[in-house]
Amino acid sequence: MEEITFAVLGTGGIGRRALEVSQHKDDLTPVAACDRRGVAIDPDGLDVDELLAATEGNIGGDAATGSGSDAAGNDDVTRHGERAGVLASAQGNETDDPIRSIVDRGDDLDAVLLALPNYEHDFIPRTADRFVDAGYDGVLVDVLKRSRVIGMLDDRSVAFEDAGVTFVCGAGATPGFLTGAAALVAQSFVEVDSVDIRWGVGLASGYEDNRGTVREDIAHLPDYDLETVRDLSDDEIEAIVDDRDGVIEFEDMEHADDVLLERAGVCEAADVTVGGVLDLRRDEKPMTTTVTVTGTTFDGERATNTVQLGDETSMAANVNGPALGYLKAGVRRNRAGEYGVFGPAELMPRI
Amino acid sequence: MEEITFAVLGTGGIGRRALEVSQHKDDLTPVAACDRRGVAIDPDGLDVDELLAATEGNIGGDAATGSGSDAAGNDDVTRHGERAGVLASAQGNETDDPIRSIVDRGDDLDAVLLALPNYEHDFIPRTADRFVDAGYDGVLVDVLKRSRVIGMLDDRSVAFEDAGVTFVCGAGATPGFLTGAAALVAQSFVEVDSVDIRWGVGLASGYEDNRGTVREDIAHLPDYDLETVRDLSDDEIEAIVDDRDGVIEFEDMEHADDVLLERAGVCEAADVTVGGVLDLRRDEKPMTTTVTVTGTTFDGERATNTVQLGDETSMAANVNGPALGYLKAGVRRNRAGEYGVFGPAELMPRI
Repeated sequence: MEEITFAVLGTGGIGRRALEVSQHKDDLTPVAACDRRGVAIDPDGLDVDELLAATEGNIGGDAATGSGSDAAGNDDVTRHGERAGVLASAQGNETDDPIRSIVDRGDDLDAVLLALPNYEHDFIPRTADRFVDAGYDGVLVDVLKRSRVIGMLDDRSVAFEDAGVTFVCGAGATPGFLTGAAALVAQSFVEVDSVDIRWGVGLASGYEDNRGTVREDIAHLPDYDLETVRDLSDDEIEAIVDDRDGVIEFEDMEHADDVLLERAGVCEAADVTVGGVLDLRRDEKPMTTTVTVTGTTFDGERATNTVQLGDETSMAANVNGPALGYLKAGVRRNRAGEYGVFGPAELMPRI
Repeated sequence: MEEITFAVLGTGGIGRRALEVSQHKDDLTPVAACDRRGVAIDPDGLDVDELLAATEGNIGGDAATGSGSDAAGNDDVTRHGERAGVLASAQGNETDDPIRSIVDRGDDLDAVLLALPNYEHDFIPRTADRFVDAGYDGVLVDVLKRSRVIGMLDDRSVAFEDAGVTFVCGAGATPGFLTGAAALVAQSFVEVDSVDIRWGVGLASGYEDNRGTVREDIAHLPDYDLETVRDLSDDEIEAIVDDRDGVIEFEDMEHADDVLLERAGVCEAADVTVGGVLDLRRDEKPMTTTVTVTGTTFDGERATNTVQLGDETSMAANVNGPALGYLKAGVRRNRAGEYGVFGPAELMPRI
């Protein structure tokens, strides 16, 4: 495959890991990255090691303390003084609109990874609008987990098609990786009765680098939503975790898996259940991440196919490998002239 | 997705099941099918039920008794008198070159499934040549399991590209379904150390409809190959089965999985092992079909991801669902202008 240049919006846990994982992919060249106050751009390829060292404090978790409501809409970043984050890098430049700086370099970008998980629902769609309005005609990839955002993206599908943009949505571990696996193993069946997705995440999964996601996940609990969670203080978040001895169980999450499997034609959204267990105190995963697809074969047998991810695979590995794999698949679709909104279950991620 | 018209070359076990499974897919319309002496064509869609009833004797197994060396190169068929097979159907017409009849209707075909598993190595490539020479510009799909055929197809990739043909090779259960699963779950890793594919097939798997495949499989045993197996009588085949009490174990098979995973960039062919256990006496699968992918994550952990197919899923279900899923994926690629040879692990099969 030909070389692919890409930008990462957000250098929190996901953005930084995506840059790191891309170092293992010969055909991927990161040429731009930003956080809330700084942007680094080099058409010949960023010095990722230097950027990662400089942004080591960018581990999110402060959505409630300001960055979430930032008008420029940049990534979560724990600031450590005046020149922290991308600005601490020799490659960083200060700007009050870092996304604009990257939109303006759209001609140099085959793909943009929107590693911005923790904002209001329409933040990613509005960011996509900025790229479309500027004449961008490449790939946009998000790693979101919220069903309702897919609808907002679908509302823009004609605009994406007119612009020549290929948008791959929900391309992280879940929904991305696990709905892809579900769609594939559903091939045994002519009728899929149910898809059950259960994830386990322990501390060793790299969760400590994604504290912003704890808040996002708590929003999935009964009695909470993204808006109420945004108003909670860090102490209140900690109290919720303490109440559960560090183990948070999720049932029937609003997770885009359902919508994405329905749009791929695998089953109806109502047949999909998503849950998981998050252990914030122990390294081990509290359960093995498992995808279970039950269906009926053409010859009338009912059976269950399963996919399991090894407990040693960190959340970071299962988010960023697939995210970049789907990014590469999206670039292939884009170069073939296929535009609009794609769910991961419609694409085989590329190694 | 728009409607897809397709033909099936061969109405043995695989071809007939593919026709049957296609009845469950709204967007697939089978418009042509043939065996060694007859062809049925209807641009508005075949009457599949009638054709299946008429071809019920077409369950292969007689490669050694003549059909394998047939110059026209038609499917295995157990003949039951003058007007057996497709000719027994009200839709059937007699011809001494049924493949030619279908090649001549290439303009009406989005895709052709080459359900011809049991011939000499270059039979599928030569059949593809006939379509290319006639100006066909759609999709060709095979369900072969032999590594060396991939090379023969690759030799034709420029011809396919010039013609506008998209060839999806090895699109059955294995390599197709299982290498696709391996490629997908490999996304956790930056380095894949090994892929192990183990299949179990019991009598209830529909093997009795695919006796020709027994011969094909025996060719994978040490001391046998396709040529020596073709010279064996049915009694000799039966003796080989008897010697093993009906249970045949395969290790290190020459199965296209290795080549296909390498071309998808997942790992080197040498890191792939394929084996299986076939029980010709009992309904139950002698082992659960399992794909095991072991690799190293970007953060240095070694782990194993697994995919298991429920024991109740028949071989027929796991061949024909994916074969048609990959056919649909191939049509999508073809319509987007992507031509040449594709392995299944490069495509997400479509439901």
